[in-house]
This record gives sequence, structure tokens and C-alpha cells, in this order.
Amino acid sequence: MVDKKLGGAGLRGQSAGETKLCTVGKSGTGLTYCGYDITDLAENATFEEVAYLLFNGELPNQAQLDAYKAELKPLRDLPQALKEVLQRIPADAHPMDVMRTGCSFLGNIEPEVDFSQQNQAANRLLAAFPAIMTYWYRFSHHGEDIDCVTDEDTIGGHFLKLLTGKTPSDLHRRVIDVSLILYAEHEFNASTFTARVCASTLSDMYSCITGAIGSLRGPLHGGANEAAMDMIEGFKSPEDAKEQMAGMLARKEKIMGFGHAVYRTSDPRNDIIKKWSEKLGHEFGDTLLYDISVACEEYMWDTKKLFCNADFFHASAYHFMGIPTKLFTPIFVCSRLTGWAAHVMEQRDNNRIIRPSADYIGAEPRKVTPIAQR
Amino acid sequence: MVDKKLGGAGLRGQSAGETKLCTVGKSGTGLTYCGYDITDLAENATFEEVAYLLFNGELPNQAQLDAYKAELKPLRDLPQALKEVLQRIPADAHPMDVMRTGCSFLGNIEPEVDFSQQNQAANRLLAAFPAIMTYWYRFSHHGEDIDCVTDEDTIGGHFLKLLTGKTPSDLHRRVIDVSLILYAEHEFNASTFTARVCASTLSDMYSCITGAIGSLRGPLHGGANEAAMDMIEGFKSPEDAKEQMAGMLARKEKIMGFGHAVYRTSDPRNDIIKKWSEKLGHEFGDTLLYDISVACEEYMWDTKKLFCNADFFHASAYHFMGIPTKLFTPIFVCSRLTGWAAHVMEQRDNNRIIRPSADYIGAEPRKVTPIAQR
Repeated sequence: MVDKKLGGAGLRGQSAGETKLCTVGKSGTGLTYCGYDITDLAENATFEEVAYLLFNGELPNQAQLDAYKAELKPLRDLPQALKEVLQRIPADAHPMDVMRTGCSFLGNIEPEVDFSQQNQAANRLLAAFPAIMTYWYRFSHHGEDIDCVTDEDTIGGHFLKLLTGKTPSDLHRRVIDVSLILYAEHEFNASTFTARVCASTLSDMYSCITGAIGSLRGPLHGGANEAAMDMIEGFKSPEDAKEQMAGMLARKEKIMGFGHAVYRTSDPRNDIIKKWSEKLGHEFGDTLLYDISVACEEYMWDTKKLFCNADFFHASAYHFMGIPTKLFTPIFVCSRLTGWAAHVMEQRDNNRIIRPSADYIGAEPRKVTPIAQR
Repeated sequence: MVDKKLGGAGLRGQSAGETKLCTVGKSGTGLTYCGYDITDLAENATFEEVAYLLFNGELPNQAQLDAYKAELKPLRDLPQALKEVLQRIPADAHPMDVMRTGCSFLGNIEPEVDFSQQNQAANRLLAAFPAIMTYWYRFSHHGEDIDCVTDEDTIGGHFLKLLTGKTPSDLHRRVIDVSLILYAEHEFNASTFTARVCASTLSDMYSCITGAIGSLRGPLHGGANEAAMDMIEGFKSPEDAKEQMAGMLARKEKIMGFGHAVYRTSDPRNDIIKKWSEKLGHEFGDTLLYDISVACEEYMWDTKKLFCNADFFHASAYHFMGIPTKLFTPIFVCSRLTGWAAHVMEQRDNNRIIRPSADYIGAEPRKVTPIAQR
């Protein structure tokens, strides 16, 4: 087999800078945020603590956490002009286009004037993203002009209440919180790197986050949990799952939710979300979807030695919480925003504009022929 | 002097891929698009021919050019929903935020459904960007709800007519066309690289261009012509310019519009736009601004051996055409869009997701302390 000449393609394995935020595949179970193992954080912290950690480098004490949550809470509502923009986006729009546009529009009317406002801008987006997503969703799909304020204590609970209009159960609050922790940060992935390239021109926070959303939209990056959901919904039973997957593999179709660019034998986030998916399934009265998911996991390991990544059991978990499949990737945005913004701040702290070179493989020097002679 | 440890910072000199589109600092006067020298193109081609060249790899013949312009012309108008979004952006918004948001919003209502539509999406943005900029500008600044359709033959003329409401002179049509050619493409600069990182996730054209606009917004990237204008407007005479610049240099203030990351002794675009600025000055009846600009050029060369880059004489040239300073960088968007879109297409042709590594310099592995004990 001859290696394809890649000429720096994808910058795989090339360092593009330094970070204090995250390690992937290096220690503990394979993923740390600021030195803390993801499993430890998912068990012993909340998403707001993780956001604080990524923005400040240290976990908050109780007083700091209370103050941070009190700062975020009044930032949840949307300005009327933004609601009017979201009202003009149809139900068949791509939900990631909605997130990208909502973020970009907010940057016009509440700009980050200078970098002293960077935490303020990040917090504003962190608090407002659940409303951007759900306001558009409920307006476009159900004609409802919802109130974007809730009395829920956490961002996760707030999102669930905005989505359904009902007070979520403690189990749902806990699982969405864990999910937001799991997706929060992942080093120099493509969307985060987009945010850092943008930040390296000293552009504003809204531009960086808008760009990152656009990159996460790509099917090679975000969206795997949506694709996994579409797949498992098409399976009638664990046996049917195995049969159909055999067919997919034989036809060389891509099966989403398995394997990883960096992890080799397992994704540390899978064990965590899988456990919660099982609990949610019991509460939901599920007798099939979780078992089908487990059958998929077993089959892919037995036949291809491929393991579930963070996305696979997120599909059933979100489904059991009543979240529409098309909102799975926007939830990823609500979470990963914390990592993106932290990387923007880090890039600004020690900046050099990111401007790589390219290998030229085009036409030799030539003269413009007058158009009449072409 | 000890070099700052950069750890891959900025990816300077590292190849991030291959391109057929452009060389910078390699042959001819230093900048080629698809093998054609920038000076040759600025003299013997039009912006629509350059756009066609970047999208197709070859200059069009007359029939192809006519067909291309006929394709672009009906794409100039804005959908009513987009006008209503632009109406909600205040006059004091950053014009680049407006461009970013207009582009992003259009992606919701006219999505690129699959890559077979990539030329269509690029052409739509190419035709519509002048209206996005000027519709917002005239609505927010003058309360005018302008018609976004003109009978101007070229994109440049169309822009000038939308901006002023008057039929532009042939000289103005020619200079804006040259300017759009000069800014069209520049290899893996930060905004283009942003577009390629986004494209590498297989995201859509609107996401890629939206992200690129956000990067061009940064003061280390776009905006130098605006900064140059602000500076030269503050000088009373050529002598005053030299005196004030001496003071700026003594205070180590950054002087925009000079020097370049890649070019070492001159920017090939400067000679071209400088010549046009002089002509426009004569037509305008200018007796000062062009001379001040020349004095700045001489002073920076004599004292610092720094040459004018593409941006410096763009300031006076745009000013003589009656273009408000705050729209200088949005014009850059209308032009560079062609390079961005061509790079997106090229990235898609031979894609690998752009996902570099990072050097970890953060906290050692540690355990989460229960919050009560922090």
C-alpha cells in the first residue's frame, strides 16, 4: 500500500500552539480539562463549575460558583431584535445555521468592544444559547413565541424547560448537565482551531464563536450523535441491528458514533453517557432502544474492534429525554462554547497570527491573452 | 537577542496543504492568481474574469464571460427577510459584523444543500454582498430603504451605484474593478485558512465564508486601509505628516499600511493602486491627500525601509471615490470572497479534516476536591 501524498494535509500531528486547557489521550482515562479527568468531573462537578474552570483555570469554591451562576442567570433572555431575526428563519433551516446566525447577530447589538469584555461576551453566549435554539425551534415548528426566562438553577435545566415548557425531572437535569460537561472541551479539534485562527487576527469573541459553529456544523465534526440516532431508529431489534449493520459494513457505508481520531481502544466519555442512557431508558419505559444500542456496540467491537465514541449513547440518552434529533448538535454548541471561548482567551494571551504556508501545485507563470483571442 | 519560544505558533512556514490558486512572493512581481501576474490581471482583465479564473482555473473567453455575468446579475437582489434582518442592525454596529450576519442569515434561507451547489452559493454571495453592505448602510445611516437592483454591468459599478444612488463615472468603475482584483486572493492568509479549516469538516459554503469574514474583521488582518485613512486624515500637510509620523515612531505606535508578512521590498499591488489614486485625486480636485500619502510613503522608506502594502493608497483612492471609511473592509469582503470560495472548493476536492496537535503546558493530573472543601 502506498501512502497518499498529503503535503501537510490536515496538519495531523503538527503542533499549532500551546494550551493549558486540555489533554486528549495522554493521562488518566484519556481526557482531562485543566488536569482534571473527565470521569472525575462528570461525577463530582457541574457544568457551571466546568465553565468556570475553563475560563479561570481553577474550580470555583461555593461562593465563587454562586456568584458565577448569579451572573449568568440575568443573561439568559434574548433581545427583541434577535427574536425577530429568529422568527424569520424557517422550520426547515439547518439548526446549526440558526445557532451561527443567532450568535453572529448578537455580536452586532451587544459587541465585545475590547478584550476586557471577553468573559462578559462568553458568559452572554453561554447563558443565551439555549434560548436562541429553543426560541427558534418552538416558533418555527409550533408557532409559539416563548418566554425565554425560567427559574431553573442550571443552564442544562433551563434548556430543558425552554424546550418542553415543563419543569424537568432531577434525573433529566443531571444527565443534561453531565452531557454538557462531556462535550465542553477537546483540545485543537477543527472547530476550536477555527476559533483560534480567528482569534489570532485579534477579531472579536462573536466572530470566533460564529466561525467555530460553522465548523462544528460539518458532518466530519459535529452531527455524529444525530446520525447515530437516525441509524438506531431504523433497527427493529438487537438482532435486526446486527444484521443491518453487517449489510452496511459490506456496502462500506460509514457507521457514525464509532472510533476516534485520537483515542485507540475506547472513548472515556462513552462509559459515562452509556450508564446514564441505561438509567434514562428505565425511567422512559424503554424496552428496545438501549438494547439495540448495546447490540450495535458489541457488534462493532466484535467485527471491527471499533468502540463507541462520546456520540453513540448520547443518541439514546437525548432521545429518552424527549430532545428532537435535530437539536443534538446545537446542544453540542451550548457545551463546546466553553472550550471555544477559553481557547480564544488563551490565544489572545500569547498571540501570533496563524498564517501557514501552502505548497503551490498550479499553473506556471503565464501572460493574460486578450479576451478576443481566447 | 533570544528568540521567543513559539512552539509552532502561527504555523509560520509550515505547509498546511496544497493550492493551485495563488503564489505569494514567488515569481513575477510577487503575486500570481492561477499563474497570472497581478499586474497583468489588473491591467488586462476585469474582476468578473478574475472570479471566473479562481473558480474555474482558466480565464473565460467572451462568450463564457457574458454567460457568467448574465448568471450573476439576477442574483444581486436581497430577499425581503434578509432586508428585515439588516434593518434591525443599528448604525453603530461594526460593518464587518453586518457582513458576517448577512452572509450567515442567507445560509438559512438559501442553503447550499450539497456540494453540487457550491458555485451557485459562491455566485449568490458574490452578487449579493454589495447589497448587504449598502442596504444596511443606507438604511441605518440615512433611513433609506433602497432598491437593491441596478442596471450596472459589473459588480464594482453596481456597488458604487447602490452606495451613492448615482451612476458612477467610468474612472470610478475602472478603479473599483481594479481594487476588487487586487484584493481577490492571497494564498493561506488567516481568513482564507479559516475558510479551509471550516471546509475540511465538510461544512457548507455559507459557514466557511461567514467564518472567513469573522477572521478578516481582526485588526491584524483586514482593516489596515481604514486605519491608514484615519491616520492620513489627521495630517495637515506633507510636512506635518512627516513630523507626526516621527512622533508616532518615537512612541512606538503601529503605523498601518506598511510592510508585509511575506513581501520583503515592495507589495506589487501598491504601484497599481497608487497610480489610480493619483488619477482619482486629479479628478476629485485633491491638492493634499495624495501628496500627504506620498510623503508618508517616502518617510517610512527613508527612515524604516518599510514600503506601502496594498492597503495604503487604497485609503486615498476609496476616499476620492466618496466611499465612507467604515466600508473599506466590507469592500475587501466583496473581493476576497472569490479567493475564499475557490479555496473551499479546492479543499473539498482533496479533503482531510484540519486537526493539528497542541503542546500541553497546563496543570498536572489532579483530583476534584469536593466543593465544600475548596
